[in-house]
Formats: sequence, C-alpha cells, structure tokens
Amino acid sequence: MTYQFITADMIVSGQRSIYSVKEKVASFTPSLTSVLIVTQDTIKNLGFIDILQEQLASPETTIEVNTNILPEPTLENIEAVYHDVSAKAYDLIIGIGGGSVLDATKILSVLMTNNQSISDMLGTDLVKEPGIPTVLIPTTSGTGSEVTPNAIVTLPEEELKVGIVSRHLLPSLVILDPELTLGLPKPITAATGMDAFTHSLESFISNKANPFSDMFALESIRLISSSIVEAYENGSSVQARENMLVGSMYGGMALTAAGTAAVHALAYPLGGKYHIPHGEANSMLLPHVMNVNMDAIIDRLYLVAEPMGISITNKSKETIAKEVITVIEEWTATLNIPQNLSDYGVKEEDLKELAVSASKVTRLLNNNPKELSLEDMENIYRKLLP
Amino acid sequence: MTYQFITADMIVSGQRSIYSVKEKVASFTPSLTSVLIVTQDTIKNLGFIDILQEQLASPETTIEVNTNILPEPTLENIEAVYHDVSAKAYDLIIGIGGGSVLDATKILSVLMTNNQSISDMLGTDLVKEPGIPTVLIPTTSGTGSEVTPNAIVTLPEEELKVGIVSRHLLPSLVILDPELTLGLPKPITAATGMDAFTHSLESFISNKANPFSDMFALESIRLISSSIVEAYENGSSVQARENMLVGSMYGGMALTAAGTAAVHALAYPLGGKYHIPHGEANSMLLPHVMNVNMDAIIDRLYLVAEPMGISITNKSKETIAKEVITVIEEWTATLNIPQNLSDYGVKEEDLKELAVSASKVTRLLNNNPKELSLEDMENIYRKLLP
Ligand SMILES: NC(=O)c1ccc[n+]([C@@H]2O[C@H](COP(=O)([O-])OP(=O)(O)OC[C@H]3O[C@@H](n4cnc5c(N)ncnc54)[C@H](O)[C@@H]3O)[C@@H](O)[C@H]2O)c1
Ligand SMILES: NC(=O)c1ccc[n+]([C@@H]2O[C@H](COP(=O)([O-])OP(=O)(O)OC[C@H]3O[C@@H](n4cnc5c(N)ncnc54)[C@H](O)[C@@H]3O)[C@@H](O)[C@H]2O)c1
Ligand SMILES: [Fe+2]
Ligand SMILES: [Fe+2]
Repeated sequence: MTYQFITADMIVSGQRSIYSVKEKVASFTPSLTSVLIVTQDTIKNLGFIDILQEQLASPETTIEVNTNILPEPTLENIEAVYHDVSAKAYDLIIGIGGGSVLDATKILSVLMTNNQSISDMLGTDLVKEPGIPTVLIPTTSGTGSEVTPNAIVTLPEEELKVGIVSRHLLPSLVILDPELTLGLPKPITAATGMDAFTHSLESFISNKANPFSDMFALESIRLISSSIVEAYENGSSVQARENMLVGSMYGGMALTAAGTAAVHALAYPLGGKYHIPHGEANSMLLPHVMNVNMDAIIDRLYLVAEPMGISITNKSKETIAKEVITVIEEWTATLNIPQNLSDYGVKEEDLKELAVSASKVTRLLNNNPKELSLEDMENIYRKLLP
Repeated sequence: MTYQFITADMIVSGQRSIYSVKEKVASFTPSLTSVLIVTQDTIKNLGFIDILQEQLASPETTIEVNTNILPEPTLENIEAVYHDVSAKAYDLIIGIGGGSVLDATKILSVLMTNNQSISDMLGTDLVKEPGIPTVLIPTTSGTGSEVTPNAIVTLPEEELKVGIVSRHLLPSLVILDPELTLGLPKPITAATGMDAFTHSLESFISNKANPFSDMFALESIRLISSSIVEAYENGSSVQARENMLVGSMYGGMALTAAGTAAVHALAYPLGGKYHIPHGEANSMLLPHVMNVNMDAIIDRLYLVAEPMGISITNKSKETIAKEVITVIEEWTATLNIPQNLSDYGVKEEDLKELAVSASKVTRLLNNNPKELSLEDMENIYRKLLP
C-alpha cells in the first residue's frame, strides 16, 4: 500500500502568532501591492481585521476587506463575492474566520487564476492552475480546512453540500493563534470541537487509514480529549484553546491522508436540507455510527482509549471500545449538543429520503469499515428521533 | 511562544512507491522535457536508476544521470558536478541516495536558478530564489534530509562541516520506498539509524522543542525503537525498513521544527577532521552527552521511555531516565558501532582542539538544555578514548 501526505507550505502556531503574518508573508511574497482580506462581520467586529491592517499597511500596499461570506456558503454567495472583488489583481488573499470563510477564500483564490466556474471545479483534481497565494487564519477549532485540499459549498436547489478537492487549494501560510478563539460562543466551541474530533476518529477507523493519518489522528484525539470540555466551560483558557486549534489542524491532516467516512456522509444531507450546523450534525451521528460499525472497529477503537485518557488496565477490548463511545456520549451531553432531529423539523417520514441522499456520498462511504445498507442509515437517523 | 512547521510539498510512502514517481510528478510538472538524476555508482548498481528511467522515458523527455556525488560531499565536489551538468536547462532534478546525495541535489537545484556560489549560500536564509523542482528519494534511513531545509557540505581545508538553511531547499516530492533500503549494509543501517534516533531525541530535549516537534520526535522514537535492531539483524524485513524510513523522515520534521543540539555540535568536528561517518559520530556521543545533560532533562527523558518500549510502572523518573540511556548504550553494542575514537586516529592531545571546534557550532549549542563549557566538551570526547 502507498499513502501520502500533503499540507500547507508553512504553519505558524502559538499565542499572538497573528502578529507574525507580515514577516512570514515576506518570505514568499517579498513585495505586497494589493491584498484582499476575506471574512465576516462577526470576525471584523472582534478587531482581528485591524490587527492585520495595521501590520500590512504601507504606502505601497492597498488592502481591501470583504465581509460578505455567509455561514456554510452557497455557490451563489461565493460567486457574488467573486464578482465584487475580481476587478483587481491581488498578490495575496487572507481568509480569517471559521471553515466557511476559509473554504470560500480557497475557492476565490483559484477562481482568480483559472478560467473556470465553481461548477467546473466540483469534484477531484479539476482545478487547472495554482491560485493566488493565500494565508488562512482559522477562528474556530473545527474543520481543519486550513490544511486540507478540500472546500465545501452548498447547492440550495439540490439541498446538497458538495466539494472541490485540489492540491491548488492548499495555502502558503497558516496562522494558528489561540487568542482568536477565546471569544468563540459556547455552542460553536462545542459543535466545531466535535467536528474536529469526528475528523480524527473517522480517519483513524477509515479503510484508508495509514501510518501518516494514524499519527495525526491519535495526536489530535489526545489534544482534543484533554481540552474540549475545558475549552467549553472555561473559554478563556489559552492552553485549552491552543490544544483545540492544533488538534483540529491535525484532524485536517488526518482526513487529508485517510478521508472521513459514514458520519460525514450522513451529516451532509442534514446540513444541505435542514441547515443543521456541520459540527452538530456530526456530533449527533458519531456515537450511533460507531455503534453500528462496532464489530469491524473494536481493534481500532481500543487504541484511541489511552489518548482519550481512558484507563485500559484489566479491561477487555470490547469493554474499552464501548467506553470510548460512552465518553463521546458524555461529551455531547456536557457540551449541550442537541440530540433530537425533530428540533430541526425532521420527521419520521423524511428518514428514507435522508438515507437515499446519504447513500450517494459514495466517496466517503467507501472509507467506512462496514458497508451500510439504506436500512442501516435510516435506522441511524431514527436513533435521533427519540 | 510561536513555533512553526514547514516540509516537502508532497510525501508518498510505502512499498513500491518508487513506481509512482511519474504519476506524482505529473501533478506539478505536467510535461517533462529534461530531467537530471543525481546519484552515486553504488545506488546505480542496485538497479534503482533503471526503474526511474523506464518510468520517465518518452520521446519528449531526455534523462541525464550523474553519479559523481561523493559521500559527505565537499563544496568542490558539488561545484564540479554543477560544472558538468549546468549547460542544460532541466525542468526536474531527482536525487536518489543517502543524505550525501540528497543534500547535493538540493544545492544543485538552487545553484541552477540563482546567480550565487555555494559559499554565498552558506548560512541561514541566504538563498535568493526557489530552485528547479526536486524529487528526493532516500536510500538510507538516517538524515531526514528529504524533508529538511538544510544541506551540509564539507570544507576540507578548514576541516569543517557547514550548512545551508533555506526553505528553497525543500523538495516538491519525496518518495519513501522501503524496498530501496533492503540491501543497505549492516554498518550503514546501524550508523544512519542512530543518526535518525539522535535527531528525534535531540529535538525532543531541545530548548526549542514545541508541540509540533514533540509529536514528530515521539513518533519517530517509537518507530525507530521498535525496528532498529530488527532492521540491522534482518535487513530484508520490509516492515522494519519501512518503520526506519518513516521514522527517520519524522526525525527530519522534528529537527526542522526544533533543531538538534550538543550531540550534533560535537559530531561535526569528528566528521570534518577525522572523517568519522556522521551517524557513527552521533551514536558514539549520544549517551555521554545525555549523561552530562541529565539533571536538566529528566522530565523529558522520562517521557520517551514508553515510546521506546521501556516499562515505567513503579519506577522513579530518575530510574526511567537512566534506563533510556542504558537502552541506547545496548543498541550501540548490538549494532557494533565503534566506541573508540583512537580507531580513527584521535589522540588525547587532540581533544582540546576538538572541543574548541565544537564550541563554535553555537547555532546548535544554543538549543542544548545545558550550557557546556570547553572542559565539559573535552571530557565528553575523553569518554571515547578508553
Ligand atoms: N474544507 C474542509 O476540509 C472542511 C471540513 C469540514 C467542514 N467544512 C465546512 O466548513 C464549514 C463550517 O465551518 P465552521 O464549523 O468553522 O463554522 P463557520 O465558519 O460557519 O462559523 C460558525 C459561526 O461562528 C462564527 N465565528 C467564527 N469564528 C468566531 C470567533 N472567533 N468568535 C465568534 N464567532 C465566530 C461565524 O461567523 C459563524 O457565524 C461548513 O461549510 C463545512 O461544510 C470544510
Ligand atoms: N540535510 C540534513 O538535514 C542532514 C542531516 C543530517 C546529516 N546530513 C548529512 O548527510 C550526509 C550523510 O548521509 P547518510 O548518513 O545518509 O550517508 P551517505 O549518503 O553518505 O551514504 C553512506 C554510504 O551508503 C551508501 N548507500 C546509500 N544507500 C545505500 C543503499 N540503499 N544500499 C547500499 N549502499 C547505500 C552510499 O553510497 C554511501 O557510500 C552527511 O554529509 C551529513 O552531514 C544532512
Ligand atoms: Fe467535518
Ligand atoms: Fe544528523
């Protein structure tokens, strides 16, 4: 078996690392003429854009800021932003925000250098040329988008989330500054943190798991397990926030090397149709999908127990694997993540169609250690209609 | 504290991954006109160059092979090879061999695009422009050079080894194929394996150790500890060879993020003056330097015991740290690594000068957790004159 690793060109981490953007950018783009910052008003209001503008301001450099990226952006939203900014030739695009902003930034960067529409790029390796160099600065600890070659867009008519996969989406520079995440609201800390954990656990049990993805997945699981509750309950803990930020980044590396699986496949229709935030959908589904996978993954689940801080002495593999799932369930309770699809308007009679939609995400279902029938998937959704 | 991670653009690993060179190169250089392969006769005689030529051969592509890189190459050696090949414009350079070949390949790549001599580049961040894209294929499991921004050359007049550090030395593609290392002679397996282990252990105790380097160092230590004796005694074990190759690569990532320390500083004069192979010099010095560092590193050494497979139950930190050093000493005995500098012509009266030379490698000594006096260093060398 061969396996591979690709990532961002340079990753800078640590408290106040946002203040090193200018110096690090100079190492690959020595003179900056025109910079585009892509973000959202929520992020701008936190003052982070000012930090970037003060650093980069100079008589030679014009800086434009666009705050129009929507959460879980649609194809039309990104095209509209592209329309607004595309008249200028930028030599750098900085995306600062959650996965929604980072994905949009990655797509804008390649739109600017390719004579292709977003629709032309949907799928794997269809982006023709490298984009404008990007700097990605996550303000959530969740998607790992800053180090993945993936970008997700929503197609509202089809009620579907679809992806672009291309190494040209990888950035020149990533900044992981935990201070940017100190004010993350509790529900977002919870949902995005569980998204990150899901990336690592799914990569670890993926059919494509390999020595590279395993290392990143286990370290990510260790960091997130040590800090997810602390980050939720005591959001101003820089150490817990840094662990979450580095842990979610490693989750992105793990999923790039091995791929996510059935949890993500089943989550997509919940996002596309019912607008359930991506991390919440994953978190709701995670224990139920793992229970269905159980007999195929005991030998793997058992190995994540120690990194999760679960004592394994004098216990059988089965007991340990079950404890792993119990801890995940305890987290979702502690983090107050909804456990009921009916809160989002899902009804018993919708489950069949949800399962049909999920069954089409074959790219991810192929990574799942167990083949899931339509009935299996319907039953998993049903667990969330108590 | 901020810390950073940079690495090769793409790393492909696994048995027979050398057969994917063509496909992977196509993802960044779609049409190949002229390729230079840099290597040594030893490697060519093993048939590896044929594998590359058969893959890349086409009417559009000319392939040139240069086998003139010397072990631990001098500046003059690399300049002579540059003189022989520089008339042509290559769009790809493939280096296949041990650290000596990989370092030379990295330097040739930037010589071809910069109007600079090797001397102009010695030091940190002095290389002006990116080089020709490179593919680095290690055939030893030691230096990690395939993923470091460093290249070492020997200056024979000054009896010194010096380095170029530049992100422009990082390759476009790394291939880690354990089959290429199956025939590595025992003494080279031993010395290069201990070099790799030293990179990881020194990075882990370095003053610049950080969450990135720690992960790579510990995983490298785990892989190498599980396989170094097996790779030595049963060289045809693909699994042991793969663990060594991935482990040495992670060692390169660890040292890029955190730097090596006093062991490497003391090893350089042994290489420059007495031509002791780099890995042997490190291996001889490692336990003695760690003993001198001991009181400053107990809390760190203790953490590498479990990844090394040393049981830690019911033992004090001190006992555990000492056991780590004992295991290293046992390896050097099992691997038949020389323990006596007098075999290489070093005499008691040379030790002072050796210590003076080592004391000039401040770039690495600054990373050492303990400040070493000239006398400390002389005493460390003296341990190797029993
Ligand atoms: N590219 C990938 O590899 C990948 C992987 C998984 C998910 N995704 C995609 O990423 C998107 C989800 O990203 P997300 O989970 O980070 O959510 P998000 O980016 O939509 O952010 C959630 C909300 O939090 C706000 N926010 C962000 N940072 C904040 C901060 N520091 N303080 C206060 N508020 C803040 C945002 O404005 C937004 O309203 C989805 O579209 C999902 O499909 C991409
Ligand atoms: N760039 C870095 O980060 C870095 C780090 C550490 C050391 N180095 C440098 O790397 C060099 C040492 O590299 P090395 O330890 O890999 O040794 P090496 O490249 O000199 O190889 C040692 C010997 O083994 C032979 N050989 C290599 N592969 C073989 C195979 N598969 N089968 C049979 N024979 C084989 C070589 O021909 C050579 O004679 C030194 O110059 C050292 O200073 C560089
Ligand atoms: Fe996700
Ligand atoms: Fe070394």
